[in-house]
Amino acid sequence: MADSTKKKLIKAELPGGFRDYGPSEAIWKTEAIDKMRTTFERFGFDPIQTSSVERTEVLTGGETDSGKIIFNIKGSREESFEDANMSLRFDLTVPLARFLAANTEIPKPFRRYQIGEVFRGESPQAGRYREFTQVDVDIVGTNAREAEAELFLLLQSVFSVLGLEEYTIKFNNRKLLNTLPQYADFPEAKLWDALRIIDKKDKIGIEGVMGELEKELGGAAAGKIAEFLNQDVRTISARAGEGGAELQELAQMLEDFGVKNWEADLSLVRGLSYYTGVVFEVVLAKAPEMGSIAGGGRYDNLLAAFTGQPIPAVGVSIGLDRLFAGLEKLGKLEKKATNTQVLILLLESSLMREYFSIAEDLRTAGVNTALYLGEDRAFQAQFAYAVKKEIPYVVIMGENEKAKGIAAIKNLATREQKEVAASEVVSYFQKSL
Amino acid sequence: MADSTKKKLIKAELPGGFRDYGPSEAIWKTEAIDKMRTTFERFGFDPIQTSSVERTEVLTGGETDSGKIIFNIKGSREESFEDANMSLRFDLTVPLARFLAANTEIPKPFRRYQIGEVFRGESPQAGRYREFTQVDVDIVGTNAREAEAELFLLLQSVFSVLGLEEYTIKFNNRKLLNTLPQYADFPEAKLWDALRIIDKKDKIGIEGVMGELEKELGGAAAGKIAEFLNQDVRTISARAGEGGAELQELAQMLEDFGVKNWEADLSLVRGLSYYTGVVFEVVLAKAPEMGSIAGGGRYDNLLAAFTGQPIPAVGVSIGLDRLFAGLEKLGKLEKKATNTQVLILLLESSLMREYFSIAEDLRTAGVNTALYLGEDRAFQAQFAYAVKKEIPYVVIMGENEKAKGIAAIKNLATREQKEVAASEVVSYFQKSL
Repeated sequence: MADSTKKKLIKAELPGGFRDYGPSEAIWKTEAIDKMRTTFERFGFDPIQTSSVERTEVLTGGETDSGKIIFNIKGSREESFEDANMSLRFDLTVPLARFLAANTEIPKPFRRYQIGEVFRGESPQAGRYREFTQVDVDIVGTNAREAEAELFLLLQSVFSVLGLEEYTIKFNNRKLLNTLPQYADFPEAKLWDALRIIDKKDKIGIEGVMGELEKELGGAAAGKIAEFLNQDVRTISARAGEGGAELQELAQMLEDFGVKNWEADLSLVRGLSYYTGVVFEVVLAKAPEMGSIAGGGRYDNLLAAFTGQPIPAVGVSIGLDRLFAGLEKLGKLEKKATNTQVLILLLESSLMREYFSIAEDLRTAGVNTALYLGEDRAFQAQFAYAVKKEIPYVVIMGENEKAKGIAAIKNLATREQKEVAASEVVSYFQKSL
Repeated sequence: MADSTKKKLIKAELPGGFRDYGPSEAIWKTEAIDKMRTTFERFGFDPIQTSSVERTEVLTGGETDSGKIIFNIKGSREESFEDANMSLRFDLTVPLARFLAANTEIPKPFRRYQIGEVFRGESPQAGRYREFTQVDVDIVGTNAREAEAELFLLLQSVFSVLGLEEYTIKFNNRKLLNTLPQYADFPEAKLWDALRIIDKKDKIGIEGVMGELEKELGGAAAGKIAEFLNQDVRTISARAGEGGAELQELAQMLEDFGVKNWEADLSLVRGLSYYTGVVFEVVLAKAPEMGSIAGGGRYDNLLAAFTGQPIPAVGVSIGLDRLFAGLEKLGKLEKKATNTQVLILLLESSLMREYFSIAEDLRTAGVNTALYLGEDRAFQAQFAYAVKKEIPYVVIMGENEKAKGIAAIKNLATREQKEVAASEVVSYFQKSL
């Protein structure tokens, strides 16, 4: 029975929570990464590339919660996960700390960027993927406020080159938040409960937050917290201490150095993990429901988990996939079907050398050029391919054109066709592209 | 006892077989990838980005051996590996086939490149890492010999932009190898045994191969195989069939289209997996012991595992990390410590606005500029930092310079210092960099 020997087909599906980027999306991502990288380098940041895989305890180390969000991995030789003791990174910050602890000779302040895939082992949710591209920029080895201002300037430049104007960089200071129990007269032990509630502001609104705070801490404390959150950063009281001073100092620098679109937001908490000073995040003014497309803060104690010595550090992560989704939602995503500018039709087998020679000349001149390589060499098939692929120009040279020493160039958008001397094809495209 | 509450330090180590790339290596890799990408786009290839994670059977599917080399992964919600059924990709070719099977609307021939990390779950060996960067270029949907020639031309351009001249592209044809039993008169069933032995040529030498072939197939067959392997591709006999004809046709095109450094090598087998026609690999003429730095071939049946329909396809993988190691070995790797060109010293707190303003102007003019952001603002500390980081220039503006309306620019390589008008700093660097 022939059928029983037939191999079962494999489903061409991805696991839940993972995705592909086809050509037009990958073209956008690649260009966005290029623009960001150029900007980072203009600001004096150098790249590093750390391993995607870390020892499990490096990732779970100081942070009991993160065990829940990591993927564990195991090769064929390892009996079990525990045996393998390896996990996929869930961010680029913990690996940076591990890298610097292992390479102490690197001069500080260390300005580095890293762009790479990170993985979250949580259950997939709508719009949240289990693998995404993260773009991180950090300055390690300084507590200077100027380093924080520098990251805000960098974000402003990055969004500018990406064509994004309507956004707000909100910021706050963890040390200031730490003074909340004293300010509002509630027990220190309740600080994180209060912050967890305040952190829900975007989800449940300020009224929701006030309601929950009243229930948790009573009306008097809740009222004082409301007062605290409404303080103007420029006139913040001396009771705000070091955190308040840092906040004011940074706000002054942002004004002095020309950062626009910033807003001090005393209700910004930004998760519960390793931040120790400034925290900030970027939201799209016209799509706040997308959540933050970038965020970061100061994390002075992260390296201490490896070295025992705190090292001041501040950094930002840009969520490239969320930025992509945000721009798409705002209709600001310019998508191209292809980077190819010219398709050379392969019409006569006797002219193959000419076709490849024209292609070589165009490529050398910087024109992105494909040769039609399908097996159906009928003119219509080749032409239809160019249309489907949205390649802007085709070069047509059959026996007739060859005899006349010319090539026909067709612009697929305007449908105009032009005859040019074969020797002029390169200069034609240098002028028209 | 204070010590017992102290947290245990976490070792800043990677699992065996994984590595980081520090700034100078990452700068090289990033630039090499840029150059390659530009070349791929010149040749009309578009990027895609597939998921790093695939369902396990997608990776093990047609290929029982590959189960041994994959990493399995599991999130916090999954009970076991079997339950999770997810693995890290070990190459970019199987994911391409899966992607195309899931996206049948994509016009063919499809010319795509993909650059990404791949993972091998084998035990770590000297010089072989368990994660590495792979660079793949494929043309799917055509059996045309021109598509193969196009990839050879592409490889030639890529190596040229990477500054690599001394290499050889060796190639062969699987269909031709399949005629070996008939040519040398040994049983079909022994074909793969013979190929496995021939494939060891680089390790055990041609004498070693002949010895093993004699033992396996007898002296007569071994002698005929030696004769087979020594055939000249230009005069190969009609007995060589379709594979021989394809080999000759490709060789003729390589000559016609101007590919240099190629060599038909009838002993080239290139593993035992999915190849169905041409196979090829690139070795460094002066470091053959590095193995191949790129390789590929035709794999017409890979998509059939998903769709039931074979689709002709040909592609090449470039091993970026091996290329890096090869160039390093040949002393051809130009390493830079940093991309930063200018460091602005922060000498007076009253001049912060000026420093940030000069930085902004330089960055806008395309000069990679860092501000010194360390907390120790002593001149010596800042200057020593520039030297250690190998930043070529520093800009010095203290109260004196400010009063005179100038800035001092020091070239750290020549130790020359020059005073320029503050308004001329940008044009100074535009001329000198």
